[in-house]
Amino acid sequence: MANHTLEGHRFDAIPRQPVSHRALIGAVEGTLADFLASQTAALDAVDPALGNFARTARDLVLAGGKRLRPTFAYWGWRGVVGPAEPVDPVLPALGALELMHTFALVHDDLMDESDTRRGRPTAHRIFASQHGEHFGGSAAILVGDLCLVWADQLLSHTRLPAAALMEVRDRYDKMRVEAIAGQYLDVLGESDPGSWSVERALTVARHKTASYTVQWPLSFGAALAGGDRRVDEAYRVYGTTVGDAFQLRDDLLGVYGDPAITGKPIADDLRTGKPTTLLMLARRMSTEAQLAAFAAGDVAQRATIIAETGAPDLVEEMIRVRVDEGVAALSEAPIHPDAREALVELATAATHRPA
Amino acid sequence: MANHTLEGHRFDAIPRQPVSHRALIGAVEGTLADFLASQTAALDAVDPALGNFARTARDLVLAGGKRLRPTFAYWGWRGVVGPAEPVDPVLPALGALELMHTFALVHDDLMDESDTRRGRPTAHRIFASQHGEHFGGSAAILVGDLCLVWADQLLSHTRLPAAALMEVRDRYDKMRVEAIAGQYLDVLGESDPGSWSVERALTVARHKTASYTVQWPLSFGAALAGGDRRVDEAYRVYGTTVGDAFQLRDDLLGVYGDPAITGKPIADDLRTGKPTTLLMLARRMSTEAQLAAFAAGDVAQRATIIAETGAPDLVEEMIRVRVDEGVAALSEAPIHPDAREALVELATAATHRPA
Repeated sequence: MANHTLEGHRFDAIPRQPVSHRALIGAVEGTLADFLASQTAALDAVDPALGNFARTARDLVLAGGKRLRPTFAYWGWRGVVGPAEPVDPVLPALGALELMHTFALVHDDLMDESDTRRGRPTAHRIFASQHGEHFGGSAAILVGDLCLVWADQLLSHTRLPAAALMEVRDRYDKMRVEAIAGQYLDVLGESDPGSWSVERALTVARHKTASYTVQWPLSFGAALAGGDRRVDEAYRVYGTTVGDAFQLRDDLLGVYGDPAITGKPIADDLRTGKPTTLLMLARRMSTEAQLAAFAAGDVAQRATIIAETGAPDLVEEMIRVRVDEGVAALSEAPIHPDAREALVELATAATHRPA
Repeated sequence: MANHTLEGHRFDAIPRQPVSHRALIGAVEGTLADFLASQTAALDAVDPALGNFARTARDLVLAGGKRLRPTFAYWGWRGVVGPAEPVDPVLPALGALELMHTFALVHDDLMDESDTRRGRPTAHRIFASQHGEHFGGSAAILVGDLCLVWADQLLSHTRLPAAALMEVRDRYDKMRVEAIAGQYLDVLGESDPGSWSVERALTVARHKTASYTVQWPLSFGAALAGGDRRVDEAYRVYGTTVGDAFQLRDDLLGVYGDPAITGKPIADDLRTGKPTTLLMLARRMSTEAQLAAFAAGDVAQRATIIAETGAPDLVEEMIRVRVDEGVAALSEAPIHPDAREALVELATAATHRPA
């Protein structure tokens, strides 16, 4: 069992449960495709221009991605219910997380003025090519809004008792507020870097990555399974620690990642001035001479100075401590063993990745 | 009972039901204020910058407005349950409609590049004054997103059985998709007026105004009351006809409204080139000479030419026919009499208003 990769989890074949990570993603994407086909057809029937609008949203949802949130939600659910429970009734809820994520990406890309995502033009670029820049921005706002509402509609298709779905929605709402709050701080940090600190960078990481990508999806999955207080607490610890570590890895990749693998420009965070935990730590750990050299240096020189402060080593240590803590939390809770194993592997894969 | 105004409905004093339109709005705004105070405090505790973000959203929600959607939802509910049912349990749902409307206004104002709303700076202007234009736009997108999620959270506070709330959510979701689709067509019409027609202008009016402002709020209110097939159908006819008429009145005010009363520039729709039903009808009803004179004319000349085509008279007739049809639909359904009377008055007030 030791040589499994993120893309190649293998389990005993259980009827109606996906037998691999790839099969799970396929089932979620199939649910999304069916839902989006019906929504797109309904809008197309009103006006072909609305069909074009809806198809653009659909294509953005189905364009791929790591599908991390449905994956964590799946394992969160599976850890409580075990391998014998059919997954079909909860697939709409897993798909809803991905629709909600498309909302976040479309709005984020507009705020960041990003031209491409997953190798394709971003929503605002697609619409700008149709009727100009202003239309592009407006239509992208609306595509994001539509995906957020579609997510709620798909969530309603979850085949759970209405009362159980109330608890799922409660966690989903908290996740959404934290994601929006994290993005606000992220935008503020780039507009007002002078007011930034290690603490604020960690708050952004907690909200945008730990809460939104790991903790709440796991918690959402546990609620889909009816919840369990001890499992909820283990997931909370795992989600926040592994999620924080995930973002800290992102900070290192943002300065030292290989552009051929990350698909982003070299030292992208240094170019944009993004005030990450790594950069805030480096600033705090710098000598006066290093601060002066950093201010005067180019991107490559800045990357070297950051390394010399010791901040990257500290961040590596922070990642290790957090992953250890998260994995330990799982071992003490009543989580089905195959789910625990999958979450341990995901913790390592998500925090020791090249991109 | 004949001399009541929109602001002065009076009913037999029933414990725990508002006795006037003003009291209803006060109760909805009180529910909103309580909810927003708790949400704002929670975000403020995370980071003062998030407190500033949340307070700005709160102030936009509480800045006033006609509160039409909660009003229609209230009467939709009241028409089914009658005057004896306490309103408290459904106040969160009425407030949710207003939070959702703030989402729509904040995003619309950004798309329209509007500087003021209700005499105050719009969200993107408030944030632009803090950290520049780009930050202003990004923060406004996020304030809108936050209000949309807050609306869902407040809706969850509705004290109804979970299964009943599922039907309410179903109608709410359809309302939101139609509002977003209508706004997309509105934006497209301004970016691509050459592709516009009477039919498309009517589709925009149906989605943005009839469905979003009248029909779905009424239907949402009926669902809060558990629904009734005959009432649903009467509300559907009333909502679409009176809602369409409401937008047609807006079209006339957009060309012939008194700026001192509407608060908008004279002939605002002619300045922005908004392809309304009125303008599309005028184009269709124009002679070649009128089309040429319109193309060469200034705003005042264009308003005169539109009048000469007969389009404004036709629109007045369309309003009359629709209001009559909507009012007639109410008379045949089992709706409590005071709610029917209030809806008849609202139909007249909304379609024969000076602003």
